[in-house]
Amino acid sequence: MKKTKDIRILIINPNSSKEMTNDIQRAAETYADGEFTVRTVSTPGAPEFIDYYIDAALAAPGMMQIIRDNYHEYDAFIVACHCDPNLDLLKEFCDKPVIGIGEASMKMASMLGHKFSVISTGSHSIANKEMLIHKYGLDSSAASVRAPEIDAASYNSADLFMSAAQAAIEKDAAEVLVLGCAGMAGIDKQIQEKFHVPVLDGIICALMMAVGMVKAGYTTSKYRQYSGPEK
Amino acid sequence: MKKTKDIRILIINPNSSKEMTNDIQRAAETYADGEFTVRTVSTPGAPEFIDYYIDAALAAPGMMQIIRDNYHEYDAFIVACHCDPNLDLLKEFCDKPVIGIGEASMKMASMLGHKFSVISTGSHSIANKEMLIHKYGLDSSAASVRAPEIDAASYNSADLFMSAAQAAIEKDAAEVLVLGCAGMAGIDKQIQEKFHVPVLDGIICALMMAVGMVKAGYTTSKYRQYSGPEK
Amino acid sequence: MKKTKDIRILIINPNSSKEMTNDIQRAAETYADGEFTVRTVSTPGAPEFIDYYIDAALAAPGMMQIIRDNYHEYDAFIVACHCDPNLDLLKEFCDKPVIGIGEASMKMASMLGHKFSVISTGSHSIANKEMLIHKYGLDSSAASVRAPEIDAASYNSADLFMSAAQAAIEKDAAEVLVLGCAGMAGIDKQIQEKFHVPVLDGIICALMMAVGMVKAGYTTSKYRQYSGPEK
Amino acid sequence: MKKTKDIRILIINPNSSKEMTNDIQRAAETYADGEFTVRTVSTPGAPEFIDYYIDAALAAPGMMQIIRDNYHEYDAFIVACHCDPNLDLLKEFCDKPVIGIGEASMKMASMLGHKFSVISTGSHSIANKEMLIHKYGLDSSAASVRAPEIDAASYNSADLFMSAAQAAIEKDAAEVLVLGCAGMAGIDKQIQEKFHVPVLDGIICALMMAVGMVKAGYTTSKYRQYSGPEK
Amino acid sequence: MKKTKDIRILIINPNSSKEMTNDIQRAAETYADGEFTVRTVSTPGAPEFIDYYIDAALAAPGMMQIIRDNYHEYDAFIVACHCDPNLDLLKEFCDKPVIGIGEASMKMASMLGHKFSVISTGSHSIANKEMLIHKYGLDSSAASVRAPEIDAASYNSADLFMSAAQAAIEKDAAEVLVLGCAGMAGIDKQIQEKFHVPVLDGIICALMMAVGMVKAGYTTSKYRQYSGPEK
Amino acid sequence: MKKTKDIRILIINPNSSKEMTNDIQRAAETYADGEFTVRTVSTPGAPEFIDYYIDAALAAPGMMQIIRDNYHEYDAFIVACHCDPNLDLLKEFCDKPVIGIGEASMKMASMLGHKFSVISTGSHSIANKEMLIHKYGLDSSAASVRAPEIDAASYNSADLFMSAAQAAIEKDAAEVLVLGCAGMAGIDKQIQEKFHVPVLDGIICALMMAVGMVKAGYTTSKYRQYSGPEK
Repeated sequence: MKKTKDIRILIINPNSSKEMTNDIQRAAETYADGEFTVRTVSTPGAPEFIDYYIDAALAAPGMMQIIRDNYHEYDAFIVACHCDPNLDLLKEFCDKPVIGIGEASMKMASMLGHKFSVISTGSHSIANKEMLIHKYGLDSSAASVRAPEIDAASYNSADLFMSAAQAAIEKDAAEVLVLGCAGMAGIDKQIQEKFHVPVLDGIICALMMAVGMVKAGYTTSKYRQYSGPEK
Repeated sequence: MKKTKDIRILIINPNSSKEMTNDIQRAAETYADGEFTVRTVSTPGAPEFIDYYIDAALAAPGMMQIIRDNYHEYDAFIVACHCDPNLDLLKEFCDKPVIGIGEASMKMASMLGHKFSVISTGSHSIANKEMLIHKYGLDSSAASVRAPEIDAASYNSADLFMSAAQAAIEKDAAEVLVLGCAGMAGIDKQIQEKFHVPVLDGIICALMMAVGMVKAGYTTSKYRQYSGPEK
Repeated sequence: MKKTKDIRILIINPNSSKEMTNDIQRAAETYADGEFTVRTVSTPGAPEFIDYYIDAALAAPGMMQIIRDNYHEYDAFIVACHCDPNLDLLKEFCDKPVIGIGEASMKMASMLGHKFSVISTGSHSIANKEMLIHKYGLDSSAASVRAPEIDAASYNSADLFMSAAQAAIEKDAAEVLVLGCAGMAGIDKQIQEKFHVPVLDGIICALMMAVGMVKAGYTTSKYRQYSGPEK
Repeated sequence: MKKTKDIRILIINPNSSKEMTNDIQRAAETYADGEFTVRTVSTPGAPEFIDYYIDAALAAPGMMQIIRDNYHEYDAFIVACHCDPNLDLLKEFCDKPVIGIGEASMKMASMLGHKFSVISTGSHSIANKEMLIHKYGLDSSAASVRAPEIDAASYNSADLFMSAAQAAIEKDAAEVLVLGCAGMAGIDKQIQEKFHVPVLDGIICALMMAVGMVKAGYTTSKYRQYSGPEK
Repeated sequence: MKKTKDIRILIINPNSSKEMTNDIQRAAETYADGEFTVRTVSTPGAPEFIDYYIDAALAAPGMMQIIRDNYHEYDAFIVACHCDPNLDLLKEFCDKPVIGIGEASMKMASMLGHKFSVISTGSHSIANKEMLIHKYGLDSSAASVRAPEIDAASYNSADLFMSAAQAAIEKDAAEVLVLGCAGMAGIDKQIQEKFHVPVLDGIICALMMAVGMVKAGYTTSKYRQYSGPEK
Repeated sequence: MKKTKDIRILIINPNSSKEMTNDIQRAAETYADGEFTVRTVSTPGAPEFIDYYIDAALAAPGMMQIIRDNYHEYDAFIVACHCDPNLDLLKEFCDKPVIGIGEASMKMASMLGHKFSVISTGSHSIANKEMLIHKYGLDSSAASVRAPEIDAASYNSADLFMSAAQAAIEKDAAEVLVLGCAGMAGIDKQIQEKFHVPVLDGIICALMMAVGMVKAGYTTSKYRQYSGPEK
């Protein structure tokens, strides 16, 4: 079995923002704490922010290329955008574990409380998050998807996220919160301190599962749909 | 942040079978591989096997006692019976992470394929597993719960499990299998080799999440229901 | 067939509050109206109020003991706490009918209107009620679970329940209300008079089904899971 | 409160078959056992058997007429066809309790086991029963709807029902059976003796609820949809 | 294959209001634009407005008579009331296509956005619309059913519908609106201009499907339940 | 309003197979019957057959390019692969109607019978179809997804499809069948003749909706998620 210290995880930031890549890498390193190797890369050819279906489509070739280029060097791959862009594609594309931060964080949230809410960057993405929740069968575990009233794609407006969090907890009866964007790193601590509910960061949830899967030798089933075309 | 080598996980085998406790401990140690501390204890006062609601009820006081006695020494607790007996109770009882092997393995299975099946020890427990699947919102991810045609509570009849696995894969279109009993350790490798689908052992799934949660500082929400009565 | 006048129902108040036991007994006697025998007992060793998972666990041994001690004298047993504590356990434990007031009242409510709401004692228990609703498959019949804004576990604050009822009816479109606590007896009449919707008391719903099942000779299936361990 | 001996229940057989009306009345009297008054009437103008949507539509005027003619003499009304024809209509039409044997029996079945199956008269009606199950939110409690392989509308072919019952129990894991036709009275005892699972007769389930509702003063909510047009 | 110009669609207005029949016919002709034949008829013997279950029942004989009288002259039939009264009955009654404007418009709405809301005439009908949504499996596509705060059965109070529409869009996150009444024709354009979301008129949705089904030779399956009784 | 004769529909065959493009065009022309213009194009850069997630991803750029190149000349676009590849992307990308043959055919099937089955090309794609059914909320309307026992991607093996159809009808109680591949054109007639149930071809279902939407001026909501990024 692989030793943790030999495990190497590659985090794919599906967008091309170096700033967000750095933020993710910092959060990942803090969690890794030197015990395993983690590296975050931006996706070449992808837009600055993954917000719409077209952003995901434009990122797909770059994301596959990243896996192709790093396949031998890394043991597992994380898709670091909370809408899990191209996740089914990459699970099929790769026979090593591929984990989406949306799926990992929402499934973990459902283990830590009766109901969770997702704090999203903007109101336009609520429908998209709700579709993910339905896809993952989490309808009965989800309290709500909340977004700041005005658009916060710039992701530094902590106050707005704070009131969205408060509404989720007090009006929607959420017991756990999930950060709905890889670029929200850091806000989790602030919300947690103020409201005393667990606030999950998808990067961290995905990292713990990735390390665990590699140690256990678990990976995506290649039986049926995820097998991909014969080579 | 806690270093992995300092993390201590206690696995509660909710029954009183020393043999099963030893099997679980062996599987857990193989996974831990010396990187963190794991110990498995039998539940005093519990029956030999947790099969029915009364078995779970009889195990409850002993399970709480185990947490009380080991609270300070351990960082997280695992309930090592696939029907997750008293899991809500212990999540409420304890402010450190408590993970059920049923919940952990079935939620992880839903990340590794479109549909999973649970291989259960006996046909009488199918309804119970189906209720768990419904409780966790996994209805649309579950292909089936399969049990050997004749009762296999003695859990050593590999052939019977093998045909149940085959039926799940070929007739129910399962892409991932989940071992439905903590005492099935070892069978996973055999099934995986024969059918080439991932076969998840709940002990291992729970261990990876426990270690991850401890590192991340995540635990059950104490807001609302899981807060427990005021002390 | 048993004559109604010979039917004897035992109501198990899962907590140890004599006051609540008396309230329940009064409500039950009013309904029984001398036509059958009904007796309510407190649960020895149980806490004063069943609010949390641990309360249910602590009540379990006493509840089983009550059935053991009264098995031959009574024809059916009612669990008189709206969160149905240990209901599956007792259905398995006993081959005579065991009815939970939560299950009985919510299933009956779904027969008297398109949508029902549960009026609960406190906001911390909303998640628990919602899990029960999901367990019983009543998601599409439930309008909401409402609780007074401030905690009302003392269950005498009629005004608070009144505004929760009003919100359920006017904002959530509930057509039927269900009292979410065995200790709310008496409030049903007040709400019904003010808002002209049926308000169901679980004790009464459970009693009518218990009497009917005894007359009909219906009881819990002992095929598969509810069979309990071999004796 | 009304005394049970003064309660009068009218069973509406939605078809015009005198033979089936007599069968239903016999089953009802056996259950009533002289403790309350029950009378069964055939529906004038209705077809011989209610099998299709048009049969239900043709029965509607006669069913309303029966309620109009007997409103003052009876305390509650039962619709004695397992597909619950015109049940919403009659709940709206009448401010006394109206109970469908399909709804009553299937909701009661879900209280006596983890999963129930309906034994239906013919394969053409399976879709209709499944729609009822979905309407009542019982999808997760229903194991299956089974019908004899060849059409058994003549409802005397006990052997065929016996094998349908066996398949439901052994292949679909049903723990409780529900007779899917008011005209199957009598077969319940045979199946129960052979397979040792509860077999529910909708007439009896509806009668116990009707008597209970009358005693309790519960009836259909007249708030919103079931209010019917202003008079 | 039938040429569009030879296709003849009959719209059944299930009520007896000539005014509403004329409104529907006008909307239908605008859409038909002379390319196929469409005629709208009122239902003899039906009430002025279909609001309650009894209205639907009273309309049933007239609706069947309309199909009987016009069967040979028309190629498809539309039920022009948004609660789809007697739709299953007519699908069974007729072997040519029968389309309900509720089903057609809500299923089409689910193709044009992630979530749709229905704007209903009055708050009493919300439960009924929600049951239709559940029947059609559209729970996860429906944002809400909204009705004007005060009753608007007179269907000319555009302002009230406007605020209901606004609430659906802004509070419930609806991306598409569906007019909940055949008599709302014309309001769709006003809402669409103000809020820039698609507003579907059921008459138009049903017409496009009716024409298409006739051209394609598609009609209701006569296998099993919709076969109706043997003739 | 646009006249039907002026309507121009472009069918995007997401793969690059000229043979399948020709088959689709033939089926489309037969339905169009000269009344409107329809043209089918292969997708440049796409694989020969769309079977896996990567096939869809590889087809995405070509599909967008087709819309870009033909935006002004056509009124609506159809995605002619039954797994609806890139459908959300194209609904967002284009402000004219975009219709998937999977979504159109399965939603229409749910209008023509209580339950439908999809006949798929191969067993590996069953999971994918089931996910689509879940995404569209059609779980309760779907009887099954059936595929020929041996792989039939070559799509000419009529006999294999015939037995899959028979199993769906007889064992799964399907009342309507849906062809699960754009390349199955022609088989619908054979199955329909043999089994007398409607067999829907997605191309035809999508065409009728496309023509209707163009006439009605209906298109994808550009409010929230489908708005796409600002230009």
